Amino acid sequence: MKRAVSVIYLLLFACGLAFAQATPYKVVFDLTSRDSLEQIAVMRWVKEISAAKPNAMLEVVMYGKGLELVMPGKSTQLSAVKEAMKNPNVSFAVCEGAMKNNKVSRDQMISGIKTVPDGIYEIISKQHEGWGYIKVMH
Amino acid sequence: MKRAVSVIYLLLFACGLAFAQATPYKVVFDLTSRDSLEQIAVMRWVKEISAAKPNAMLEVVMYGKGLELVMPGKSTQLSAVKEAMKNPNVSFAVCEGAMKNNKVSRDQMISGIKTVPDGIYEIISKQHEGWGYIKVMH
Amino acid sequence: MKRAVSVIYLLLFACGLAFAQATPYKVVFDLTSRDSLEQIAVMRWVKEISAAKPNAMLEVVMYGKGLELVMPGKSTQLSAVKEAMKNPNVSFAVCEGAMKNNKVSRDQMISGIKTVPDGIYEIISKQHEGWGYIKVMH
Repeated sequence: MKRAVSVIYLLLFACGLAFAQATPYKVVFDLTSRDSLEQIAVMRWVKEISAAKPNAMLEVVMYGKGLELVMPGKSTQLSAVKEAMKNPNVSFAVCEGAMKNNKVSRDQMISGIKTVPDGIYEIISKQHEGWGYIKVMH
Repeated sequence: MKRAVSVIYLLLFACGLAFAQATPYKVVFDLTSRDSLEQIAVMRWVKEISAAKPNAMLEVVMYGKGLELVMPGKSTQLSAVKEAMKNPNVSFAVCEGAMKNNKVSRDQMISGIKTVPDGIYEIISKQHEGWGYIKVMH
Repeated sequence: MKRAVSVIYLLLFACGLAFAQATPYKVVFDLTSRDSLEQIAVMRWVKEISAAKPNAMLEVVMYGKGLELVMPGKSTQLSAVKEAMKNPNVSFAVCEGAMKNNKVSRDQMISGIKTVPDGIYEIISKQHEGWGYIKVMH
C-alpha cells in the first residue's frame, strides 16, 4: 500500500516536472502571403533562430499563395530557403491543395521541399503536438 | 499491491495513447478583416475541409471588421456562408462587442449566426479545449 | 489495495476537473506591424478586456516593426499604452532582436517596457503555459 502511494507521488512529481520544464523551441510558421515583406520576415526569423538555437525545430507551412516562397521566379528568398534547409531541424512544407488550386507542380518548386495533403491540418497537428504557432504577417 | 501497480501502468498507457492519437480536425478561424480576399480565403478553406472531412469541427469567429462576412450588402461570400452552415459541424460566431463598436444589429446579419459576448475569449477558449487556431490573412 | 484504487480515482477526478474548468483569461498578442490600424486594434482590445476583466492576464509581444507601438514619435497609441500599463496584469514586451535589427535603443521607448531576448520564444512560451494566442492584424 505504502509503495503504491509512493509510486503515485512519484508520478505526480514527474508530471509536475514535465509541465515546469522549459518550453522546447518548436515553431510552426503559417505563411499564406506572396508578399515579399512576408517572405523576408519569415526567412529572417528562421535564420536568426537557427543561428542562435541550432536544435530548434522549425517548420514553415505554406498554403494559399504562400507557396511562392519556394518557387524560382516568384520568390525573393530562394537562397535563404536553400541555406536554411541545410539544417535538418528546419523544414518547409507546401500544401498539396494549394498546389492544385494554383496549378503549381512539383517541378516549379525547388527540390527537397516536403508536401503535405492539407496545410491547415499540418499546422493544427503541430499545435496539438505542442509546437508554438506564429502567423507570418508584417 | 501488484494490482495497484498494474492499474497505474494501465493509466499511463491510456494517457500515452491519448497523446499519441491523431489530431482531431477542429479549427477556430480568427477573422478580423473586411477585405474580400480574406472572406474568399476563409470560405474556401471551410468549403474544402468540410467536403473532405464532413466531421471536422470548424468555427469562424468574427470580431473587428470581420463580421462583414455575414452581412448582406457587405459580404462577397453570403451564399458560401449559407451553404457551409448546412453542415452542423460548421459554425459562425460574431463578437457582440464588435457588433456594438460597429453599430451592427442582429437583423443586419443573416439569420442563424451565433453571437458570443467576447470574440477573443471565444477563440482562446477553443484553443484551451484543444482546437487548432488559424489566423485568416492572405 | 482499495485505498490505492481510491487514490487513483481521486487523481483522475482531479485531472478531469482541471480540464473541465473555465478557460483562464490569459492572452498573448503578437504584434509585428507598424500600421496604425493594428496599433489601434490591439490597444482597443487590451482596454476593453482589461475593463471587463481586470484580472485578465494580457501581454503584447512586439517584434518586427511592432515595437513602434511604444516609441514616442512613431506610435499613435502612447497614452493608451501608458494607461493600460497601470494594470499590473497587462504587460508589453519588446524583442531585443527587433531592437537591434531596427537600431532602437531603450531610451527611444517609453519607460517601464519589458524587453525579452527573443519575441518569438516569448510567444511560444506563453502558448506552452496555456495562454491563448492572438495575431494582431486587421
